[in-house]
Amino acid sequence: MEVGFVGAGRMGLAMIRNLVAAGHGVRVFDVSEAAVARAVAAGATAAATAADAVRGDAVLSMLPNDRAMRAVFLESDVLARAPWSLVHVNMATASVACARELASAHAARGVAYVSAPVFGRPEMAARRELNVMAAGPPEAIDRVQPLFDAIGRRTWRLGEEPTSANVTKIAGNLIVACMIESLGEAAALARAHAIPPADLLGVVVGSLFDVPIVRTYADLVASETFEPAGFDLRLGLKDTQLALAAGEAVHLPLPFASVLRDNYLDALAHGAETKDWSAITQVATRRAALDAT
Amino acid sequence: MEVGFVGAGRMGLAMIRNLVAAGHGVRVFDVSEAAVARAVAAGATAAATAADAVRGDAVLSMLPNDRAMRAVFLESDVLARAPWSLVHVNMATASVACARELASAHAARGVAYVSAPVFGRPEMAARRELNVMAAGPPEAIDRVQPLFDAIGRRTWRLGEEPTSANVTKIAGNLIVACMIESLGEAAALARAHAIPPADLLGVVVGSLFDVPIVRTYADLVASETFEPAGFDLRLGLKDTQLALAAGEAVHLPLPFASVLRDNYLDALAHGAETKDWSAITQVATRRAALDAT
Amino acid sequence: MEVGFVGAGRMGLAMIRNLVAAGHGVRVFDVSEAAVARAVAAGATAAATAADAVRGDAVLSMLPNDRAMRAVFLESDVLARAPWSLVHVNMATASVACARELASAHAARGVAYVSAPVFGRPEMAARRELNVMAAGPPEAIDRVQPLFDAIGRRTWRLGEEPTSANVTKIAGNLIVACMIESLGEAAALARAHAIPPADLLGVVVGSLFDVPIVRTYADLVASETFEPAGFDLRLGLKDTQLALAAGEAVHLPLPFASVLRDNYLDALAHGAETKDWSAITQVATRRAALDAT
Amino acid sequence: MEVGFVGAGRMGLAMIRNLVAAGHGVRVFDVSEAAVARAVAAGATAAATAADAVRGDAVLSMLPNDRAMRAVFLESDVLARAPWSLVHVNMATASVACARELASAHAARGVAYVSAPVFGRPEMAARRELNVMAAGPPEAIDRVQPLFDAIGRRTWRLGEEPTSANVTKIAGNLIVACMIESLGEAAALARAHAIPPADLLGVVVGSLFDVPIVRTYADLVASETFEPAGFDLRLGLKDTQLALAAGEAVHLPLPFASVLRDNYLDALAHGAETKDWSAITQVATRRAALDAT
Repeated sequence: MEVGFVGAGRMGLAMIRNLVAAGHGVRVFDVSEAAVARAVAAGATAAATAADAVRGDAVLSMLPNDRAMRAVFLESDVLARAPWSLVHVNMATASVACARELASAHAARGVAYVSAPVFGRPEMAARRELNVMAAGPPEAIDRVQPLFDAIGRRTWRLGEEPTSANVTKIAGNLIVACMIESLGEAAALARAHAIPPADLLGVVVGSLFDVPIVRTYADLVASETFEPAGFDLRLGLKDTQLALAAGEAVHLPLPFASVLRDNYLDALAHGAETKDWSAITQVATRRAALDAT
Repeated sequence: MEVGFVGAGRMGLAMIRNLVAAGHGVRVFDVSEAAVARAVAAGATAAATAADAVRGDAVLSMLPNDRAMRAVFLESDVLARAPWSLVHVNMATASVACARELASAHAARGVAYVSAPVFGRPEMAARRELNVMAAGPPEAIDRVQPLFDAIGRRTWRLGEEPTSANVTKIAGNLIVACMIESLGEAAALARAHAIPPADLLGVVVGSLFDVPIVRTYADLVASETFEPAGFDLRLGLKDTQLALAAGEAVHLPLPFASVLRDNYLDALAHGAETKDWSAITQVATRRAALDAT
Repeated sequence: MEVGFVGAGRMGLAMIRNLVAAGHGVRVFDVSEAAVARAVAAGATAAATAADAVRGDAVLSMLPNDRAMRAVFLESDVLARAPWSLVHVNMATASVACARELASAHAARGVAYVSAPVFGRPEMAARRELNVMAAGPPEAIDRVQPLFDAIGRRTWRLGEEPTSANVTKIAGNLIVACMIESLGEAAALARAHAIPPADLLGVVVGSLFDVPIVRTYADLVASETFEPAGFDLRLGLKDTQLALAAGEAVHLPLPFASVLRDNYLDALAHGAETKDWSAITQVATRRAALDAT
Repeated sequence: MEVGFVGAGRMGLAMIRNLVAAGHGVRVFDVSEAAVARAVAAGATAAATAADAVRGDAVLSMLPNDRAMRAVFLESDVLARAPWSLVHVNMATASVACARELASAHAARGVAYVSAPVFGRPEMAARRELNVMAAGPPEAIDRVQPLFDAIGRRTWRLGEEPTSANVTKIAGNLIVACMIESLGEAAALARAHAIPPADLLGVVVGSLFDVPIVRTYADLVASETFEPAGFDLRLGLKDTQLALAAGEAVHLPLPFASVLRDNYLDALAHGAETKDWSAITQVATRRAALDAT
């Protein structure tokens, strides 16, 4: 297929490589020329403008935040100029509010819109191990399914309402964030009772939670290795805020998310800006003054 | 080996069956005559008193709470009358404070003491799938290892200090309880946004957390099936209180555990006394008034 | 003095009446013609546009939220057209971020800017019992002091940085909101133990907190009278969000504010949209199922 | 009247002085001989044993915790030996569970029992400014009213059920503890925005909360003066635990109390053992890393 790609950051680049490897033609736009150059080196062609990428069979976008998505797709004329047959596949983690605006703007312009955020980090994207959550018109998803097959290990269909995929992504991230905090509280309890956290977490992961995501974070927490960041703590805070906002919109208290928010702030106040989001687990350690011993 | 067994409830009985099946002789004591009768039907012999079970090569105990453990092992003379070669293996979930008292009472009497709580529910005990966390004198653990092999799939050694196994059990349960609450907050977020919780949890479990314990609870939460209880909600509250008490002793705040405690109380106030501890997830649903729609 | 007044809602109108009574000339603008008519009936004159009110010696503004303040003072040309000698006194509860933008926009235009939010409800404004928190250039505050004297019982000076008054207002409201929640938790504890909340709160207020604001809320809580709203619950949520945002900007966790936010959402989910913000206290009652008995 | 007094700590001694000054005969028992000596120096006579103090018209007790109350009144024979006409007035802060046991033990022995905890600190006791909350048989309260008049400024009657006074005391203390935490969150918000906490708290107290208890704590918080302790932080934690336990007994979540508990632990982990309970406010400061600047 001939596809455009808007937003060639770490995740985007890994996807582009897999799309090219699967034989698709990819025109890439990014505000960073260096990012475009890396994509071209991977076999893509450069688009001069966002609009230049929004043509062909489909355009995939992987922009970092609501603001960037709004700038490209809502506050410009790219949708107005998009070909009628185009499918836009938005793979970024958008807020529910932004996702809703995007869905309705595409509907107003008659452009097929698929919301398709993913679970997975850049190294998983590189290995085609992403899980894709796709929601939107079924026939549009059918058309872009070959693209999902090129970048992920599995596509989960979540119905026709695009925002369902965004809510699912946000809720899934909340579960992961809560898992990390709970590992941290448990590790602090162990440490305070003179038990190596690695012993505790080794048992718990080995017995009950032997999946890569838990094992990965248990290792980071036990070894207190929070740099370099795989997913940085400010993004953890951002994702928790997306969950809180999604809850607020439906009058749903999320007390675990409130605790997470407070703890991310505590971590940021103590220099965790460039650390992995699992550095939230230092908060429990510090509050019990275990860091000083 | 010739072993005694004190406390033949659902978990105890499943262990007794496996001990008998592995060729061990088991003398069983329980305050409930019916429980003893079931054990005898499974091939054990009846002990007339607790003291009568505390002899032979080892005694295993699986009592329901601190009070029962204190009554049998601290407030009676069974330790004073125990043979010098006996190993006591305490498999129950004790508080850290009680575990410490037990360890020191055994040390004072010269009775080898192994703390060995388990991860697993009765049906897993039946299938020899328990994970045993053993802490105590290494040579004592070596001697009772055949018993652990008969009842569990793996033994995790946690050092010489018996309480380490108790802290690990308590901290591990806290992680499981937090996972359940986080599934509940995520499910409520989905439901409030008109997404079937089963869709959300199916993706999250299938993508990231594909282990039996998470799949089990995700199914219960998605289907809102909280009866009959596998592990009842009052026990969930009790375990959270053990975590809070273990944290308090070392001046460690555990904010997730505090939220759990509040939510268990909310659930109990709304009739969850006999429900599974995953009924804590009804709290988020109810607070957002999603139960009324 | 000759002053303009932008925003003649309930609070604004009460202030306008007192300004007129003190002999000041007041030109009033509001998007609601009915509001302007009420002000004119109270002795003010009507301004045709916001710009028409932003002249004379000073302009006071009392707009309901950030959006309205931004629309009038940042996204129009009123500041560009304001006379050089004018002092703008902004009495509304702005977010810290908006307050900062306003301060810097005024500085860029050379218009003196005083931030002067108040403690007090409409009926207190009517009785000239407001407490005014003023921050900004001292000479500007000196010039508008007669206006503060006309509307309030006391002016508290908080330095030259206008946002200091906003932070103080937000932090003060947080203390009041926390007081209300604590009365609610205490009242629920009493009720659950078969003690009339009025007995408990009567003792506590009479013994320790005998000031009008506490007595007022204690009476509302004890009698469960939450309608009509003096200050509605959505505004309580908004103010708590202002506190959370002000904390977030400086990486400060505010765990009480997080609890308040969750409880306001719970209240809104249960139909408290038009109730007084003290209806947050129904949440504790409901969570313990005391409402059903 | 001829009265006994059990427990002559700081509060007890101040009460004893006022009883003596009012012309009552007071026989004092305390496990500390030094405490008894101070009471004798104040005009009381020494009782050799607790039982020796439990006779005459009434006995007042002011013991530090449940354990001491249980030891003296439940696990000894003093009630069995008490004269039929005696009224026992228990002024200590007991848990609801202990209060209930005491009430029922007195009923079983036919000894009139009045629960009468107080609001006030030792210096207020010295000035006869205590507020007494009395619950129990009305005729018994009538008989000891002269004693209350001698030690307090006002007696609040809370019905016939003695535990009502204990719940009221616990709930009142919770409100005070919440007020202190809220002052701390507000002060941290001010400090982080470069506003002197004294400015913020001066306005809030002066405008809205101008009562001694708030002014006192606002001054301590603003000046960060937490030593010497008027009421030490461990007692603050204990009182919060009494509230949590009283809530737990009736399945009532108290989320503010849960936050307080976590913060007291954080404070204790950072060396606040001998500080005033208002040192809980250092937690917000430290979590935002404001203590390091």
